[in-house]
Amino acid sequence: MPPYDVVTFGEALLRLTPPNFQRIEQTTLFHGSIGGAELNTAVGLARLGMRVTWVSRLPRNPLGRLIVNGAREHGVDVSHVVWSDTDRAGVYFLEEGAAPRPSSVLYDRADSACARLRPLELDWDAILAGARVFQVTGITPALSDGCRRATFEAIEAAKAAGALVSFDPNFRSKLWSTAEAKQVYLAIAPQLDILFCSHEGLRDFYGIAADDAIGAAEQARERFGLQAVVMTTREARGVHDNTVGSIVVADRVYRDREREVEVVERLGAGDAYAAGLLFGLLTGDWEKAVAYGGAAGALKHSIPGDFPLLTEEEIRQEIEAPSIRVSR
Amino acid sequence: MPPYDVVTFGEALLRLTPPNFQRIEQTTLFHGSIGGAELNTAVGLARLGMRVTWVSRLPRNPLGRLIVNGAREHGVDVSHVVWSDTDRAGVYFLEEGAAPRPSSVLYDRADSACARLRPLELDWDAILAGARVFQVTGITPALSDGCRRATFEAIEAAKAAGALVSFDPNFRSKLWSTAEAKQVYLAIAPQLDILFCSHEGLRDFYGIAADDAIGAAEQARERFGLQAVVMTTREARGVHDNTVGSIVVADRVYRDREREVEVVERLGAGDAYAAGLLFGLLTGDWEKAVAYGGAAGALKHSIPGDFPLLTEEEIRQEIEAPSIRVSR
Amino acid sequence: MPPYDVVTFGEALLRLTPPNFQRIEQTTLFHGSIGGAELNTAVGLARLGMRVTWVSRLPRNPLGRLIVNGAREHGVDVSHVVWSDTDRAGVYFLEEGAAPRPSSVLYDRADSACARLRPLELDWDAILAGARVFQVTGITPALSDGCRRATFEAIEAAKAAGALVSFDPNFRSKLWSTAEAKQVYLAIAPQLDILFCSHEGLRDFYGIAADDAIGAAEQARERFGLQAVVMTTREARGVHDNTVGSIVVADRVYRDREREVEVVERLGAGDAYAAGLLFGLLTGDWEKAVAYGGAAGALKHSIPGDFPLLTEEEIRQEIEAPSIRVSR
Amino acid sequence: MPPYDVVTFGEALLRLTPPNFQRIEQTTLFHGSIGGAELNTAVGLARLGMRVTWVSRLPRNPLGRLIVNGAREHGVDVSHVVWSDTDRAGVYFLEEGAAPRPSSVLYDRADSACARLRPLELDWDAILAGARVFQVTGITPALSDGCRRATFEAIEAAKAAGALVSFDPNFRSKLWSTAEAKQVYLAIAPQLDILFCSHEGLRDFYGIAADDAIGAAEQARERFGLQAVVMTTREARGVHDNTVGSIVVADRVYRDREREVEVVERLGAGDAYAAGLLFGLLTGDWEKAVAYGGAAGALKHSIPGDFPLLTEEEIRQEIEAPSIRVSR
Amino acid sequence: MPPYDVVTFGEALLRLTPPNFQRIEQTTLFHGSIGGAELNTAVGLARLGMRVTWVSRLPRNPLGRLIVNGAREHGVDVSHVVWSDTDRAGVYFLEEGAAPRPSSVLYDRADSACARLRPLELDWDAILAGARVFQVTGITPALSDGCRRATFEAIEAAKAAGALVSFDPNFRSKLWSTAEAKQVYLAIAPQLDILFCSHEGLRDFYGIAADDAIGAAEQARERFGLQAVVMTTREARGVHDNTVGSIVVADRVYRDREREVEVVERLGAGDAYAAGLLFGLLTGDWEKAVAYGGAAGALKHSIPGDFPLLTEEEIRQEIEAPSIRVSR
Amino acid sequence: MPPYDVVTFGEALLRLTPPNFQRIEQTTLFHGSIGGAELNTAVGLARLGMRVTWVSRLPRNPLGRLIVNGAREHGVDVSHVVWSDTDRAGVYFLEEGAAPRPSSVLYDRADSACARLRPLELDWDAILAGARVFQVTGITPALSDGCRRATFEAIEAAKAAGALVSFDPNFRSKLWSTAEAKQVYLAIAPQLDILFCSHEGLRDFYGIAADDAIGAAEQARERFGLQAVVMTTREARGVHDNTVGSIVVADRVYRDREREVEVVERLGAGDAYAAGLLFGLLTGDWEKAVAYGGAAGALKHSIPGDFPLLTEEEIRQEIEAPSIRVSR
Repeated sequence: MPPYDVVTFGEALLRLTPPNFQRIEQTTLFHGSIGGAELNTAVGLARLGMRVTWVSRLPRNPLGRLIVNGAREHGVDVSHVVWSDTDRAGVYFLEEGAAPRPSSVLYDRADSACARLRPLELDWDAILAGARVFQVTGITPALSDGCRRATFEAIEAAKAAGALVSFDPNFRSKLWSTAEAKQVYLAIAPQLDILFCSHEGLRDFYGIAADDAIGAAEQARERFGLQAVVMTTREARGVHDNTVGSIVVADRVYRDREREVEVVERLGAGDAYAAGLLFGLLTGDWEKAVAYGGAAGALKHSIPGDFPLLTEEEIRQEIEAPSIRVSR
Repeated sequence: MPPYDVVTFGEALLRLTPPNFQRIEQTTLFHGSIGGAELNTAVGLARLGMRVTWVSRLPRNPLGRLIVNGAREHGVDVSHVVWSDTDRAGVYFLEEGAAPRPSSVLYDRADSACARLRPLELDWDAILAGARVFQVTGITPALSDGCRRATFEAIEAAKAAGALVSFDPNFRSKLWSTAEAKQVYLAIAPQLDILFCSHEGLRDFYGIAADDAIGAAEQARERFGLQAVVMTTREARGVHDNTVGSIVVADRVYRDREREVEVVERLGAGDAYAAGLLFGLLTGDWEKAVAYGGAAGALKHSIPGDFPLLTEEEIRQEIEAPSIRVSR
Repeated sequence: MPPYDVVTFGEALLRLTPPNFQRIEQTTLFHGSIGGAELNTAVGLARLGMRVTWVSRLPRNPLGRLIVNGAREHGVDVSHVVWSDTDRAGVYFLEEGAAPRPSSVLYDRADSACARLRPLELDWDAILAGARVFQVTGITPALSDGCRRATFEAIEAAKAAGALVSFDPNFRSKLWSTAEAKQVYLAIAPQLDILFCSHEGLRDFYGIAADDAIGAAEQARERFGLQAVVMTTREARGVHDNTVGSIVVADRVYRDREREVEVVERLGAGDAYAAGLLFGLLTGDWEKAVAYGGAAGALKHSIPGDFPLLTEEEIRQEIEAPSIRVSR
Repeated sequence: MPPYDVVTFGEALLRLTPPNFQRIEQTTLFHGSIGGAELNTAVGLARLGMRVTWVSRLPRNPLGRLIVNGAREHGVDVSHVVWSDTDRAGVYFLEEGAAPRPSSVLYDRADSACARLRPLELDWDAILAGARVFQVTGITPALSDGCRRATFEAIEAAKAAGALVSFDPNFRSKLWSTAEAKQVYLAIAPQLDILFCSHEGLRDFYGIAADDAIGAAEQARERFGLQAVVMTTREARGVHDNTVGSIVVADRVYRDREREVEVVERLGAGDAYAAGLLFGLLTGDWEKAVAYGGAAGALKHSIPGDFPLLTEEEIRQEIEAPSIRVSR
Repeated sequence: MPPYDVVTFGEALLRLTPPNFQRIEQTTLFHGSIGGAELNTAVGLARLGMRVTWVSRLPRNPLGRLIVNGAREHGVDVSHVVWSDTDRAGVYFLEEGAAPRPSSVLYDRADSACARLRPLELDWDAILAGARVFQVTGITPALSDGCRRATFEAIEAAKAAGALVSFDPNFRSKLWSTAEAKQVYLAIAPQLDILFCSHEGLRDFYGIAADDAIGAAEQARERFGLQAVVMTTREARGVHDNTVGSIVVADRVYRDREREVEVVERLGAGDAYAAGLLFGLLTGDWEKAVAYGGAAGALKHSIPGDFPLLTEEEIRQEIEAPSIRVSR
Repeated sequence: MPPYDVVTFGEALLRLTPPNFQRIEQTTLFHGSIGGAELNTAVGLARLGMRVTWVSRLPRNPLGRLIVNGAREHGVDVSHVVWSDTDRAGVYFLEEGAAPRPSSVLYDRADSACARLRPLELDWDAILAGARVFQVTGITPALSDGCRRATFEAIEAAKAAGALVSFDPNFRSKLWSTAEAKQVYLAIAPQLDILFCSHEGLRDFYGIAADDAIGAAEQARERFGLQAVVMTTREARGVHDNTVGSIVVADRVYRDREREVEVVERLGAGDAYAAGLLFGLLTGDWEKAVAYGGAAGALKHSIPGDFPLLTEEEIRQEIEAPSIRVSR
């Protein structure tokens, strides 16, 4: 079996969403779907033709199978998922908002099979042999001590294997404190090649003070020896009416055009961006990376659920000949 | 049993709504829910911890039970609901619109159990003993002679009990004519403490001519001896894209900030505002009242159905640290 | 049986739409409805009280019956539908988009019963005897040779019967090439009385060069001896946020006011416009035609499915006293 | 326009059914459909190719249109429906049961447009001119005085026009008392040609005492000068597990074979039987009538909603080569 | 506030059920409802007019509120529910089966707010003062040490308050072992007044050997000083085709008649039986108790969800004049 | 990459099913799922841990991807699926019946991508290298000439590769005539190792006359040199109430026990049986094969959709300790 293009590592959860903006208290129906930052990116990459494996830990029960099926459905390799006979699957409830009420996530993921991962359960050297990119977010180390240690081990193995290490802090205030997060982010930073982080994130988590975003990104590149800092931007006039864009500070500064998005789904946009960017990078250069990241991230806002259910043709169309007229 | 903080009185109906903007003529499915101006306010108040009773009349059949269950579910006392062995439950159909088509209500509430209320069925003195507020809207006296008489009796008993009387004309052109409404509104006016009424309403129903809203409100306060005139404002760029705000003219003029709302549901916003305002007033002062009214009313636009399914924490958050970023 | 006011001719298909912006790849549910440009217009006209027949060919199976039932439901005469014992019903899948992803149609209509129509199956002289308008779109001749020939025959018979011939090119790039379309459009043009066509369409399909729309329309009127050129306009800020308007160049230039539309459904708006326009024309004059066309077309954006489920009262209300406040 | 094969007269209602055996008190969703004994039979007949008109009275609002659309969808003529500008549409709620809980109907049809019919609104002689059958059930005269008088007038006009008069008492204890019903049934009896009535019904409503069903039917034939008494039978092992059969006592006794039915829907089975029987009679003889009635009635149990959505081919198949193997 | 007729104590969970027999692995939709043995019984009793409180512990989040709303909706007092700021709500997934596949429950209730109850959080003496019955099942002590201790304390307080103690072992093999259960069941036994237990249960959990059920029940009565042993019986020809009955061995042997049930929902039947039985006992005698228990339990099989959504009238009807004919 | 345990070959279609027994003519909703005899069996085998590839041809569009995703979701290898840029996906509509109305399939699969397969598109030798079983049904050769030739080539290659060839005639009268089928079946027969065929099938298609099923099977084994004849049996008391069993005539006669099945879904039961049987055979012997086939086939009746969504544990449970009590 040839090596993977991309290896991702993290938890995926059953997501339960009341339909039509209903609140949990008033619903009798939940849409079930699957999501998890690293799996979302893995799905996006697999759909674009990359060889991707998603590493995680799941209970051997219908919910664990539901999650792994969802990954497999879109072509993600799941052969390194560890199965637990006793633990539970993580769950999260999403209440979709509309201005002025924000969407809100209720996590029920404590003590999940993934959080109970013990580092020695995974043979990172074998998994990462020959891989080109290892992608993880800050959610994984936030889950538990075991996940934190596994994240560090995976990054180390990735470096040893010659893979690029790509990291999105993805801070979740419902999982850990800023102080806890910061300590981990800083410890990881020097190992990274690609860091997804906003101007505010660079200041709050990495202590980088700079008046403008690009200046901050350049400081971060230098301080941590990064190949690129990826900064997505968002202006939100409402929950469903946003403008998104991005800047990548690598060998030079790459700016993607801004796009108006009618937000059907806010979740997973960053993960879709990451999928587009990594695909562009692995099949081209930073210019292609930014273009593909921007298009994939923007298009994702129109697709319900966490997964970026796009085709390369659609992304290319959005880059080369964007149109919102009915295609018929 | 301790006395009620708030007593409300009015009809609640089964609401039948075709999903996804469907017209009645094309649907095969109706979402069923419950609504009625005074019950909506009662639900909002009960959820905020107030002791609230809702007085009404319902048929002793599954629809009557459905309605009373819905009130009880959110903590509203229903021990004064009168049960009828013969009458029907009121029903209304809602077709949700989108610009340029307005939403439209088709009432089927004639001869409902509530409309057939005979005043002597209710012992208002007992119900209102010790109550702090009696809240009713102009829909109740529009239903029937019996309801009109009962409204007057209730207001009289409320005054006698020392409760504040709060009234929202809530004119419904499908229920009665402007002339009929005006006569009732004017007869009630001198008994009121709090009047919810727009600048136009003061002119059309109360004959108050003033160039600006605040001037009109001040005239109304003086003429009827009101404690406060509550004026909510709305600018509608579309059915689903509004800006809302409010002004309360009481001991001084209180202005709430304006809020952009992405309208999921237009119905019940005024009733939610009333719930927030009365809660703020009963637990604080007019400043708190306006802040809570404005936040509750604006947030309600994001919640399907008539009921303001909010928590105090959400209202406080919207007042103190509003944000439309996903909470996770 | 009295003659028809309007005769239309074309295919109607089963439309399958994943709910809530879902992509086909992620859905487990399809909303089924019926649509087809000429049938859509026929439904609109029948609902406004016109005697309308819709001519088509359908398989004698549940899908064929579903389609004919849908036409009949709204009062369209279907007595000239030809039934096939062997062919299939056309189907199309619609993925609803949101900016920046456009809505997209996946046709599965090849070899449908309608496409397999042989011209001699229809007695156009009998059908059109006494008719006032024959309405067809460019989709019908795009379906097959048989449909093309039948279209020409129908137009000829309509002229012979003294009916106005009304034509909307409705170019579908998924059905034929621009070159093929152009040839047919030009061949039909001299027979037409009413042509629905934008400024760009006049240039691309009819080779009419003019700097402004009205100039182009006037040239077209003259060149082809048309009674009127109908030009609808659309500015799309997003898939769901549009401004629509229209200009009719007939004995003089008629301009309808522009309207903001919150787009629930983009499909069928042009067909609704045509229904309104033809109704206005047949019951009044070009001024009424434009007003009814514009109101019907704009209102249609708020109604799911292809059919313009409107009443004359609603159209009149939108013309005379437009409002987006809840009607109650 | 040629005369009708069959004229029917009665109310049709909006039916609201909670899905999946839910009780009204627990549902948030109602399936909407249309039903009414005489309309159900009319739909069945129209689908079999008969010219059928359904006479009724409906409000000019979306619910009235929904009902008339449903009739028209299946080919029933509605040109004699009287439209009211003020009244309401009748509604009924159905709770589907499972043993030992019976299905239960909650009527909300008082003061409906149909109940408020005034006899002079209908020109029965014109409607019935040339008709072959007039079909009505005992529900229509139970609705109101006006409906009772109209029923009598219609029957008289039918006799005058030489049509067969067919009547199914369809006793509804929630609409009137046995005594009231009996009086009407007996007054109508001498005018009838075809009476649908069970052994028990003949005893309870017509005072015919006989030990066996056939003896009773023969007495009834003789006493009232009937052409036929139609007796459907049902053995219910559960709500969803029944055996149905029928006997027609006409010039001789015709017995249909008994059929096991897996009951998806209990409502409308008798009306479907009537449609099959009348179709068989009008296109054949009593033997065909019984065969078609029995097959149509049995098959109807498998179809949700009140309408007998069958084809002649399916009925013939059930008569000639019944099978429950998947047809593929 | 007057004392409670019945006090119940236990966990209620969010139940998530894929629709239409779908397996978890194939669904994208979950019906959400609420269930828990003691709450189910409480709901049944409250609907019959009893004063009932349900004691539990819930998280202060939307799921906790959903559960408490559900209890309150049907009139159950929830003023003694303890709120937790940190814990989770228990969840269970139900896959509905059909022969030969059984229905299957997947619990996700470990570490729920209820399981984390600490006994001192509840003032049982106050809660039970004046109560007539304390009802609990063997699920509660199976949840955690804290729940076990609280169960014992509650039973002790109930005895002290003079309430009858009613217990249903309700063994759940997915929660604990037979050995663990047995130890608790035996420790509780001498405190009980009413024991719900089958012949097999008496043998397996209480070590009572007797050839026949009644003999076993009589031994149990004697050994533990019980007032009654309640034995429900079930013969299952399929998942959806059962015969149920019951025997109560009290001062004498009471046998209810057997009933065929078409099983819409298997869950909650025993809890409904208990509600009927306790209601019958508290408002009558053992004869009434058995009749009401049997009817309520049998009827519950026709109602989706865990709650016995019945009325006293329906139960009485099923006892006195059972029928499965449509009620209309 | 190691060789496959099982190779299957055939078409999979989008299945569209109106919910709740609705007829196509009355539905507005279709459940979408995926099915195809050979894919169904492949899914069953993959879920049991076998390495399985499914060979087919699909259009490169959302429907093609939907189908391949569905296969992949359950672990079936799809690397040999041929993609077409022009053709369509096959579709079938299922109307679910209830006695006396059978379920009915409406195929719309003519000219599908799979039917347009040209034999040379597949390298059977490479695909089958090392495979242990090749499984195909009589549907594949019925689709088109191309599919017929490909079927013969595949069988030849399978024999050459030393794989067992397993065949289920699966006669579909809507696809071809008995005469056409017979010719193909007989041509294939001598190449087969395992034949799924009933007593009637042996007579009608293979001309084997024998009084009893086992005798016929033995004749078939001898005549065609088969390793085994697999005969499933079904007694249908209703569409939803069946008894199923099976007999395998191999080295000796193996009889599985008969099982009562409450039929949620009739389709795919035979394919599930085949999956169980082949799994049992490949991991054990004929005794295990029959046991696993019988259990898998019976259990499948309880699962909606075409796929056998079972686990090995469930099958084993059904064999060793069958029970229909709720598992909790």
